[in-house]
Amino acid sequence: MTDLKIVAVDITPVALKDPPLLNSSGVHEPYALRSIIEVHTDAGIVGVNEAYGDDATLALLHQSADAVIGADAFDLNGIGRRVATAVGGAEASSPTELIGAASHDKTVAQAFAAFEVACFDAQGKATGRRVVDLLGGAVRERVDFSAYLFYKWAEHPGDFDVDPWGEALDPDGIVDQARRMVDKYGFGSLKLKGGVFAPEEEIEAVKALRRAFPDRPVRLDPNANWTVETSHRVAAALEGELEYLEDPTPGIPGMAEVAAKTDLPLATNMCVTSFADIPESIRLDAVQVILSDHHFWGGLRATQNLAALCDTFGLGLSMHSNTHLGVSLAAMAHIAASTPNLTYALDTHTPWKAQDEDVVLGGGLTFTDGALTLPRGPGLGVELDRDAIARLHEQYLTCGIRRRDDVGWMRRVRPEWTGKRPRF
Amino acid sequence: MTDLKIVAVDITPVALKDPPLLNSSGVHEPYALRSIIEVHTDAGIVGVNEAYGDDATLALLHQSADAVIGADAFDLNGIGRRVATAVGGAEASSPTELIGAASHDKTVAQAFAAFEVACFDAQGKATGRRVVDLLGGAVRERVDFSAYLFYKWAEHPGDFDVDPWGEALDPDGIVDQARRMVDKYGFGSLKLKGGVFAPEEEIEAVKALRRAFPDRPVRLDPNANWTVETSHRVAAALEGELEYLEDPTPGIPGMAEVAAKTDLPLATNMCVTSFADIPESIRLDAVQVILSDHHFWGGLRATQNLAALCDTFGLGLSMHSNTHLGVSLAAMAHIAASTPNLTYALDTHTPWKAQDEDVVLGGGLTFTDGALTLPRGPGLGVELDRDAIARLHEQYLTCGIRRRDDVGWMRRVRPEWTGKRPRF
Repeated sequence: MTDLKIVAVDITPVALKDPPLLNSSGVHEPYALRSIIEVHTDAGIVGVNEAYGDDATLALLHQSADAVIGADAFDLNGIGRRVATAVGGAEASSPTELIGAASHDKTVAQAFAAFEVACFDAQGKATGRRVVDLLGGAVRERVDFSAYLFYKWAEHPGDFDVDPWGEALDPDGIVDQARRMVDKYGFGSLKLKGGVFAPEEEIEAVKALRRAFPDRPVRLDPNANWTVETSHRVAAALEGELEYLEDPTPGIPGMAEVAAKTDLPLATNMCVTSFADIPESIRLDAVQVILSDHHFWGGLRATQNLAALCDTFGLGLSMHSNTHLGVSLAAMAHIAASTPNLTYALDTHTPWKAQDEDVVLGGGLTFTDGALTLPRGPGLGVELDRDAIARLHEQYLTCGIRRRDDVGWMRRVRPEWTGKRPRF
Repeated sequence: MTDLKIVAVDITPVALKDPPLLNSSGVHEPYALRSIIEVHTDAGIVGVNEAYGDDATLALLHQSADAVIGADAFDLNGIGRRVATAVGGAEASSPTELIGAASHDKTVAQAFAAFEVACFDAQGKATGRRVVDLLGGAVRERVDFSAYLFYKWAEHPGDFDVDPWGEALDPDGIVDQARRMVDKYGFGSLKLKGGVFAPEEEIEAVKALRRAFPDRPVRLDPNANWTVETSHRVAAALEGELEYLEDPTPGIPGMAEVAAKTDLPLATNMCVTSFADIPESIRLDAVQVILSDHHFWGGLRATQNLAALCDTFGLGLSMHSNTHLGVSLAAMAHIAASTPNLTYALDTHTPWKAQDEDVVLGGGLTFTDGALTLPRGPGLGVELDRDAIARLHEQYLTCGIRRRDDVGWMRRVRPEWTGKRPRF
């Protein structure tokens, strides 16, 4: 094989419609931002990937893109060094506070991951191999995902398309939403985004889900919106009811206090979000499940390193999701399929996407019986839909949103809103 | 690319001449055993590797070989499962007690590693890529090795070839040996195998090395032949003199006791030799440097996982060596070159090999200025020397040795010898 040298990089920001999903920060805006990365090589092979699409991320990606040109798409170590140097003194940035505090390490990891996955796609296309094969082979050909349930309004304030899911502001609304999602996709487990209403209401919603779907494990994720005391109370009320409790309270020491008094496994994608957080977390036995996310852990190989670490220390491993499109979904599936100890169903926002909005041909991958079958083609196994990208890029240009701001959008309806956590 | 399905496996035991090198167990026998693994694929590509060659290992390799036939050489996860099943109920076995206690996990890891590296070689040959590229790219094209110094007799008892290195039984002998080795290969750091003589004599040898080579870091490895008290005494005497002190005393708790009273970093390839040992070791802060070895940690990917783990917990990472040939040397170089935090010079027994005994064409890779330049060819970049393999296999058949037994060989000279540790 000849070289696989990177000769050009395209970064295309896109916006997709997003329903008014409620969380501890506020509410999703009418559009979510992503970017499509295309890494062109001298062999004519193009590796693709998907990353965040906010202004800060785009700036980092452009800085990094200049630096990776000339690198061999197999030289991930070298690309890592180039990206680290390019990002250099840039301010730490995060597309959302819902994935924990920003740090310089995470900022570099985010930028690197955007290129690393695209390079894996290029490597796969160059060798006629699926990304999962380059990652050690598929432990499973079908990857389970969970139904990601949200409290939500019926519609956004203002003149926006109305999503088909309707309002869900109480236990009945959540159970109805779950039933529609399970009927449509067959999900075998349920996750409720909490931290929105008083904990007692959310406890009732979880119990209602358990009654309605007694065979389906349920998770609850209040995004660190509870004090330690509130967390103790909720954990006691839901002992035996939850598969795991996600980020009840902020910070590793706080999580450790909660963990010490409950048998519920605590999961996180907020307090342990980079390798630097691991030692303290292990020392304090603060979390029992880590929600991996290649977008901010530093790519697919870093996720494998995290998986080996979880295996070594007896930690569970699951997967986090921000709003995303089909390229990210494929990358999530490949890394999950190659990871023996990633046995929990993965989170995904896919059902919240408008049916006609994806950047991959065929309208995006979908779920049957709650699982996604790994694409067969080389690389990630997805092909970009040029017309769709043009349309979603145009939407990006006109939508006016340049960074995610769930707090600000909530203020349109509730001017006194601060998004300060913990609220309960 | 089409399939890369394993259709046959050849395992060829070989014996190489080995000088009478002394250690805490006893003395090297006149021949050391290795095996050459060849994994044939349906594409006609053959992946090669080198493993231990004792009877127990050979039995495990043959059991595993039957199981991996039919597997895709990219499906390392699947091959791992097949090997684990094949090894199944086999008794835990280790080619030498000098790499710590045998365990079932390590036995599986050893068997898997033998095939994993051969599959990487096949993958590299199939894709026209070096193994280092498949591992994330070369962080360095030249890999530093250290001079591995041994107390030794001038010759073996009995009728065997005499090696060119002569006797080394005191500080002067060790310094002379070091000078010859440094002059010949340019090694920039020195390692003394200790645990042979009274600790005071070995302290003197280290101090003599430091005087003779003031710019070269020195390591001392008594292979757990000291009590905790003796270790405290030696550590105090060599504070500031050693790059690190290897396995002064047996077991993680003992090492932790030693570590608590010295600023010398403690290194190990005896008490932390599998992922199962990591949590206790971290909890007790027992070791500061792990000596990796893909042969028993479970291959190249497992070594990368170990490296990420060391990086996460601020542990140093170096590399252990048993007596080996050129295929193992190449594999060591590839994994080291791809590992950013493997910054210590690697151990190698290569200088102790007879000049005309190697299984790779060209008589084996060699060192200039203390480093090995990574081979340029695809895969591991080494080609098997059929004539040499035939010769060394014949030597295996006639030498009569079927498992390493440093204790037994020492008894030929000292019938009262037990090899029991700690002796001092």
